[in-house]
Amino acid sequence: MTEFIYGHWSIMETLRAGRRQMEQILLTETVEEKGLVAEILTTAQERGVKVRRVPRRIIDDLANGANHQNMALRVSNYPYVEIEDVLGVSRQREEKPFILLLDLLKDPQNVGVLLRVADAVGVHGVILQERRGVAITPSVVNASSGAVEHLHIVQVTNLVQTMKDLKAEDVWMVGLDVGPNVPPIDKTDLNMALGLVLGSEGEGMRRLVRDTCDLLLSLPMRGKVASLNVATVGSVALYAAWQARGWTGWAHA
Amino acid sequence: MTEFIYGHWSIMETLRAGRRQMEQILLTETVEEKGLVAEILTTAQERGVKVRRVPRRIIDDLANGANHQNMALRVSNYPYVEIEDVLGVSRQREEKPFILLLDLLKDPQNVGVLLRVADAVGVHGVILQERRGVAITPSVVNASSGAVEHLHIVQVTNLVQTMKDLKAEDVWMVGLDVGPNVPPIDKTDLNMALGLVLGSEGEGMRRLVRDTCDLLLSLPMRGKVASLNVATVGSVALYAAWQARGWTGWAHA
Repeated sequence: MTEFIYGHWSIMETLRAGRRQMEQILLTETVEEKGLVAEILTTAQERGVKVRRVPRRIIDDLANGANHQNMALRVSNYPYVEIEDVLGVSRQREEKPFILLLDLLKDPQNVGVLLRVADAVGVHGVILQERRGVAITPSVVNASSGAVEHLHIVQVTNLVQTMKDLKAEDVWMVGLDVGPNVPPIDKTDLNMALGLVLGSEGEGMRRLVRDTCDLLLSLPMRGKVASLNVATVGSVALYAAWQARGWTGWAHA
Repeated sequence: MTEFIYGHWSIMETLRAGRRQMEQILLTETVEEKGLVAEILTTAQERGVKVRRVPRRIIDDLANGANHQNMALRVSNYPYVEIEDVLGVSRQREEKPFILLLDLLKDPQNVGVLLRVADAVGVHGVILQERRGVAITPSVVNASSGAVEHLHIVQVTNLVQTMKDLKAEDVWMVGLDVGPNVPPIDKTDLNMALGLVLGSEGEGMRRLVRDTCDLLLSLPMRGKVASLNVATVGSVALYAAWQARGWTGWAHA
């Protein structure tokens, strides 16, 4: 199966990561080969990916009306990995596991933003509930500015079972939740083998997922509008977790 | 001058805050009066705001093609306040000043997300550089889920001068920046009279704005995609600042 990645940074990071089979780049007839476009084409050439000029309407169609920036890259589907690979990254870096788990998030934009942050803080992997949740589509790739191409992402059919498996490996499951009895995020030292669990937009975690967490934490709010986007909550929590690790692996740490 | 607020939460929070003159609600002919729509109409009635049914294309036009959710509210322009009002909020709450300053941000979505977080952490006010930066348009109101209606926002013509004025009031100007020599965000105790300064998408703070900061901090990154959206950076920084204050004012603190 193939699909079309669009957007400059998505295409650049897909080429850089080099984890997918890459067939060819389609470029609109009028776009000039300068700046980032020229860099992308040079990288494509180094990778042996052909370039073809096509009428704009073809790329419009392939990108389903999204802002494709005059370019699409035909590639094989997203290269999901297995849980064992994620734990392998953790061992290889000699760090306690640092994993993000997403329960049925729906909005590609939210997932893209979260995965860009997941890359920035250096999580070892991301676990997605399959079917009713979002998959790594070209629109998620684009919303993440291509960051997903460097991440290790696992799709599972039963998130609760995966959480139990990880708990058996001594990874703590910490769910982000709301409500009056949920302690704030700085109440627990997050410098631990960590699986951070986020629930869907609006509804939060499913009951069984919540019940399977070892502990629940919340992001306090004191405004008049008593809710935050899950991408915001997750971004703050991911940074809190990495900060608790003393910015491990940061070039300037 | 009037404008049209669209989107359910934007309209609800505008009605709740009650800071604008509100003329009437336009509703598409087919929408049913139930759920949140019914709540909005009840609130409108309590506020003496009339409701009129109109063809959908009228609201499409007023919302410039945005997702208006079948509803628009005709209101007077956003009620900006003065710096003195922001400092007044700080004194009234008996808290050290907690202010967000935005230098030339361009994207209404980014600004909306940031202002929703600004409301959640309870900043005393927000300062925007006028003209080339974003103003509080209906699309910012919508991107903030209506949170801006509860915030105290100041438009200034010269952000550098405003920063100097605030420094004279013993408010520290802390700029969020990138680069190898910028210390990470947890390097400084942010529990101080604080003005958090964010620069524009892509370019960051203008040179004079950066030079006027008392100190610069960064959000570390260790991923392959070495950048984050300004809304993400700002959200994490705002939470770091409120956490440093021990979640002051949180109902559950």
